[in-house]
Amino acid sequence: MLVGRRSWKIEWGDCDPAGIVHFPRYLFFFDSCTVSLFEQAGLPKRQMLRDYNMAGCPVVDLRVRFLIPSQYGDEVVIESAIREWRRSSFEVQHRLLRGEALAVEGVETRVWTVRDPVDTERLKGAPIPEDVRARFV
Amino acid sequence: MLVGRRSWKIEWGDCDPAGIVHFPRYLFFFDSCTVSLFEQAGLPKRQMLRDYNMAGCPVVDLRVRFLIPSQYGDEVVIESAIREWRRSSFEVQHRLLRGEALAVEGVETRVWTVRDPVDTERLKGAPIPEDVRARFV
Amino acid sequence: MLVGRRSWKIEWGDCDPAGIVHFPRYLFFFDSCTVSLFEQAGLPKRQMLRDYNMAGCPVVDLRVRFLIPSQYGDEVVIESAIREWRRSSFEVQHRLLRGEALAVEGVETRVWTVRDPVDTERLKGAPIPEDVRARFV
Amino acid sequence: MLVGRRSWKIEWGDCDPAGIVHFPRYLFFFDSCTVSLFEQAGLPKRQMLRDYNMAGCPVVDLRVRFLIPSQYGDEVVIESAIREWRRSSFEVQHRLLRGEALAVEGVETRVWTVRDPVDTERLKGAPIPEDVRARFV
Repeated sequence: MLVGRRSWKIEWGDCDPAGIVHFPRYLFFFDSCTVSLFEQAGLPKRQMLRDYNMAGCPVVDLRVRFLIPSQYGDEVVIESAIREWRRSSFEVQHRLLRGEALAVEGVETRVWTVRDPVDTERLKGAPIPEDVRARFV
Repeated sequence: MLVGRRSWKIEWGDCDPAGIVHFPRYLFFFDSCTVSLFEQAGLPKRQMLRDYNMAGCPVVDLRVRFLIPSQYGDEVVIESAIREWRRSSFEVQHRLLRGEALAVEGVETRVWTVRDPVDTERLKGAPIPEDVRARFV
Repeated sequence: MLVGRRSWKIEWGDCDPAGIVHFPRYLFFFDSCTVSLFEQAGLPKRQMLRDYNMAGCPVVDLRVRFLIPSQYGDEVVIESAIREWRRSSFEVQHRLLRGEALAVEGVETRVWTVRDPVDTERLKGAPIPEDVRARFV
Repeated sequence: MLVGRRSWKIEWGDCDPAGIVHFPRYLFFFDSCTVSLFEQAGLPKRQMLRDYNMAGCPVVDLRVRFLIPSQYGDEVVIESAIREWRRSSFEVQHRLLRGEALAVEGVETRVWTVRDPVDTERLKGAPIPEDVRARFV
C-alpha cells in the first residue's frame, strides 16, 4: 500500500491566541496530503481533471481525533494512505506524528466525481477507474 | 436549549479551483459559531479566559458530513447548539443550511480546559462549572 | 462615488498567538470587500465572468498601512471605494475603522482581465467597459 | 547580508476559483519567511519573546507587486532579507521566484515591539538590540 509522507513546519500564522494550531488548519494540511498522495501515485490533480473527465474528489465525510496540540515551531510529519476503496468512493487516513507520538488522526471519505458529458456543469459520482486504484497497491 | 444562528456569505476566497468552498473553511466557520454561541449565552471567550482560569475548549473529536457543496455568492445559515454535556466535555452540533436544505452537518467534542494554578503552562481538562451549563438551557 | 460598507466581527481564528489579527487576514477581507463593492454596483462576480468574457480583476499592486491592531471580539467596519479609474486598471481603497479611528488602510491596483477569444486559456488586460465604470459614479 | 530561502509548493487550497493563488496567501507565506529568516539568524520567535521582553514585530506597512500568477502544483522559491535597519523598525524584502522569473515582490516594514515592564499589556516600539542586528550581517 502506497503511503505518503510529508513534513510540516508549524507556522506562527497557523496558531491561534491560545498558541496552538487552529484546528481547521489541520484539515488544510490533510487535504494537501491527499493531493500529494495522488501525485506520488503518478496522478497530479491537473492531469486527473484532464484525463478522466474528473471534477475532483470532494470530501463527503470527515472524522478527526485531536490527541496532542502542536505549537508554532513544531515540526510534524503526516502519513497518508488510502485504507479502503469502494465502487465510487474511498477513505484516506492521515496520521500526524510528533516524533513517535500520534497527535492528530483524520479519515476523509471522498467521492470520485465526474462531469456529465452533455451538461458539463452537472457533477456526479462515478466508478473509480481500475487503473487509478492499481497505482496505490 | 439555546440555539445560535449565524448567516455566512460565501466569499470568493473561501472557494477552491473547483469553484466550491474548500472544506477546511467550513471548520473555520463552525469554530466561529461555537465562540458566538457562548457569547450569546453571555460568555464571551475573553471573559471566560479571565473568570474561569480557563485556557480554552479545544476540539478533541470532530465528525462532519458534507451533503451539498456551496459556491461563491451563496448565502447560508449555520445553526449551532450544545446537544450534550458531560462532566468536562460537551458536544456542539452545527447545521449549515441552504434555504431549507441541510448542506453540511458537523459535531465537535470539546474539552473544558483550565490552567494548572501552580504551573500555568500546564493545561488539563476540568469539570464544566455549573453556572456555565445553566446558561444554555 | 459609490462607497461600500461592511462590518466584520473579528474571529478567534483570525488572530495569532500574539492575540491580534494575523495581517494576511486583513487582505482576505479587503478582497471580499472589493467583490461586495461590485455586487453593490449591480455586478456580481459570476455575472461579470459570464457577461464580459472576463477572467477576473487580479491585484497587481498592493499598499497597506497597519495603524492600530485589532483583537478577537472587536467589531470593525470596512469602507471601500474605487478612487481612480485608468484605461484597463483601477484602484480600490479600503479603510478599516474601529469606531471613528482608522485602523488599517489599503489600496489595491487591479487589472480588468479577459480571456483571449481564440485561446481561452490566455488572459490579458483589456479596457474597462464604459457601462461598468458608469455604475460606480 | 543574510538571505533566507524557502521553497513553497502551491497547494490546491491556496488557489481561488480562477485557479490562481488567492493573493492573501502570499502574505501568509511572506510572514512565515520572515519568521524563518530570524530562525536562520539564531533567533526563533519563542526565544525572542522570552529573551528580549519582546511582544512581536508587527507589520506597519506593506507594499507588494504581483507580476506573474501561480497555480496549484507550481513550485516556487521565496528569498527574504532585511534590506534596511532603522532605530526601532526594519524592512524585510521578499522575492518570490518561479524559476528565474520574479513573480511577486513584497516589502514589509516591521516594528520591534516590547512589553511595558510595569503594565505588561501595554506594548510599544523600542530600539532594536544591537546583538539582534549583528546576526544578520
